[in-house]
Amino acid sequence: MTAPVFSATEMARRVREGDVRAVDLAAASLAAIEARNPALNAYTGVTAERALAEAAEIDARRARGERLPPLAGVPYAVKNLFDVQGVTTLCGGRVHADEPPAASDATAVARLRAAGAVLTGTLNMDEHAYGFTTENSHYGVTRNPHDAARVAGGSSGGSGAAVGAGLVPLALGTDTNGSVRVPAALCGVFGIKPTYGRLGRGGVYPFVFSLDHVGALGACANDLALACAAMQGVDARDPATYPAPGPLAPLPGLPAGLRVAVLDAWFERWAGPSAWRAVDLAASALGARARATLHGAERARSAAFLITGAEGGALHRAGLRARYDAYEPHSRDRLLAGGLLPAAWVSDAQRARRDVHEEAMRLFDRHDLLLAAATPVAAPLAGAATFDLHGQSLPARASLGLLTQPISCLGLPVCTVPVWPDGPGGLPLGVQLIAAPGRDDLCLAAGAALEHAGVARLDAPASA
Amino acid sequence: MTAPVFSATEMARRVREGDVRAVDLAAASLAAIEARNPALNAYTGVTAERALAEAAEIDARRARGERLPPLAGVPYAVKNLFDVQGVTTLCGGRVHADEPPAASDATAVARLRAAGAVLTGTLNMDEHAYGFTTENSHYGVTRNPHDAARVAGGSSGGSGAAVGAGLVPLALGTDTNGSVRVPAALCGVFGIKPTYGRLGRGGVYPFVFSLDHVGALGACANDLALACAAMQGVDARDPATYPAPGPLAPLPGLPAGLRVAVLDAWFERWAGPSAWRAVDLAASALGARARATLHGAERARSAAFLITGAEGGALHRAGLRARYDAYEPHSRDRLLAGGLLPAAWVSDAQRARRDVHEEAMRLFDRHDLLLAAATPVAAPLAGAATFDLHGQSLPARASLGLLTQPISCLGLPVCTVPVWPDGPGGLPLGVQLIAAPGRDDLCLAAGAALEHAGVARLDAPASA
Repeated sequence: MTAPVFSATEMARRVREGDVRAVDLAAASLAAIEARNPALNAYTGVTAERALAEAAEIDARRARGERLPPLAGVPYAVKNLFDVQGVTTLCGGRVHADEPPAASDATAVARLRAAGAVLTGTLNMDEHAYGFTTENSHYGVTRNPHDAARVAGGSSGGSGAAVGAGLVPLALGTDTNGSVRVPAALCGVFGIKPTYGRLGRGGVYPFVFSLDHVGALGACANDLALACAAMQGVDARDPATYPAPGPLAPLPGLPAGLRVAVLDAWFERWAGPSAWRAVDLAASALGARARATLHGAERARSAAFLITGAEGGALHRAGLRARYDAYEPHSRDRLLAGGLLPAAWVSDAQRARRDVHEEAMRLFDRHDLLLAAATPVAAPLAGAATFDLHGQSLPARASLGLLTQPISCLGLPVCTVPVWPDGPGGLPLGVQLIAAPGRDDLCLAAGAALEHAGVARLDAPASA
Repeated sequence: MTAPVFSATEMARRVREGDVRAVDLAAASLAAIEARNPALNAYTGVTAERALAEAAEIDARRARGERLPPLAGVPYAVKNLFDVQGVTTLCGGRVHADEPPAASDATAVARLRAAGAVLTGTLNMDEHAYGFTTENSHYGVTRNPHDAARVAGGSSGGSGAAVGAGLVPLALGTDTNGSVRVPAALCGVFGIKPTYGRLGRGGVYPFVFSLDHVGALGACANDLALACAAMQGVDARDPATYPAPGPLAPLPGLPAGLRVAVLDAWFERWAGPSAWRAVDLAASALGARARATLHGAERARSAAFLITGAEGGALHRAGLRARYDAYEPHSRDRLLAGGLLPAAWVSDAQRARRDVHEEAMRLFDRHDLLLAAATPVAAPLAGAATFDLHGQSLPARASLGLLTQPISCLGLPVCTVPVWPDGPGGLPLGVQLIAAPGRDDLCLAAGAALEHAGVARLDAPASA
């Protein structure tokens, strides 16, 4: 299949074949950022000089007749918790604003650079990645590219907005409880939360060691495959990484006889009508015939909450003690409370998490791919404390993760694809394509199949 | 090189080529167990019926002209924390003796069975794997095969004794803080603690999730490679497992220009004269020219202590509350204390551990393989509360892990090989061959090279 014009895949192809110069792509991206970011508030820093230098280097390599790497000339940006040499790593926090700039790039950034990608800047997020809306009290709200009155989701909200608004075809995020998938869904872009340990977290500001994933948001599934292929493998700065098991790109077609099931129970109960319709569209296109129940989904979510609070709380307790007032009001009390938990509770939560992992693995005996909505509803209005679901009022910030949290807690690979169940004028929603550990290839291939079927794409199709 | 006659490698070759029947190997192993186990106390259960049935099945497959799997006909045994269908999983504890038998085999056992190995029984250990001596108050002391007055080490003491005494060429153990490497060293056998996550722990009684490793003890390095090759890869019951990165057996030769260094500082300070001589013998044979310092080794060990106590304590706190008196006196108070720790301390310990992992990875920029002694001293006498080191009296049970604990805490692959620095009549000591994550192949190949050089072997060479 052909990649969309606005995609990393297509941009790299055009640079490789000499249809466009990398510096022109970089300049176009920087111009789009300048024009649209003031309204979006996706970027907290623009690395224009670096972008132009990296792009010029790609053009020079091509001029020398060198073989170009797979992402040559592709403009991208990173959530501001990734170390970027010479830039202060904010992690969404005012408390970090006066720290010295990072001495070197995060592993993921260094590997994307080696793959030819061109860094345009750093992106807004919920402070310390603890939130689902990117309503940052210090750096402002990131706006949804499809409706500026709405949030972009979080915590990688700047990443979702930057790709959704067409500023860059690729952005890095992190996903602890849904922080890649929620903004990907709400901003209508593709997102990948790879298998836990596949992508290294060296030089990434940590949150929860056993739940943190580096992930990517992009314009199509193949963009995500290219990015993961460039970043995967053992990272000296991340003891959870494992040796890359094989190539990830280009994506294969879907294997014949793929057994696809829709997750019910918890995942049906917490999906609003539009979200459920999005799942239905994807299920039909993939020929899903079965339903599957993940027993313990609620338990897994509770475990993730507890582990997150405890570990985040431990990480920040010295900082909170010293500068409580400078911390994000939306999350500081949760961190304080988490820091007081007994170790035995966290240990129990980790065990609960493993029990549910085993339940999930039993599902993969019978199914290759599981589908679920990424969020209960489309993007809420900025400032909304609640959203309505099945006539019930839910706290907006926590509840956007209802459907992602039980999955990330298990470390499974998930590709989320943008679907438009309400047609033109409607807002996008995300569908999670969930595979067994290590089968990132499968969920990405399913994402590509949904693009091919016209169900998933960056912008709303004319009809849905 | 040729494998020793008493080895899994050689036994499988002979079965494959029809030189010996699998049932005869099984019968010989069962006869040796019957003759020698009463004095050794390595086995807590013998699965004679299963062994003979599995062996007969191998012989039948050969008779049908089938291609036999890599461990066909090899008798082995497992530490009694591995689930064996139809056998109660004791985990060294009297508190488990009345529990129902396991409904199915542990993943490792099922995979060894699929590889043709023949299970002869279950082996003694420290209760709940919390100890380094296998002086089990309920099931008795396992005796060192080279001196019955001495301990076999622990917690996989039965595994070390069974291989060291020649009852089976292969045994499974687990290693959280040194529980494969300590008994391998003290019993004079080869041992592997693979990269964390390489071997699945499904159906293994847990201790500390982030530190527990399945490992193997064997008659030569190639036996360990065959066993790991059979067991590696994603385990549906262990979320820490990753896809197997490639084949492990047969072992390659050592790459030319291998950069080998001896660990100093902590690892020199806590090695007694014989242990240091053992390292020196291995270093000379491998052409080690450099020394390397692992900064933070002590910090890593403290972190491992704390994490072990907290997680073990959480796991057993309900049991301790209900049946304190039935628990092992050597460890129950440590578990009780661990269960009272705050989560923030454990979180800090996990962070310390990751810092030291990063230090280790910096060493691997300059060195491919690091050497250290496995234990400070050779096997202590059973019942000894202390041992002497450099004129200092150290608590025997905790201090046997001084040199293993800082390494397992980092998840690095380690092959420990038996060296005899004090010549005939002397006791064996172990040398740890430590490689970067995923490079289990390299430390096993180095182990094989030391066999080839005559430095490492199951029994004492005529001169040393």
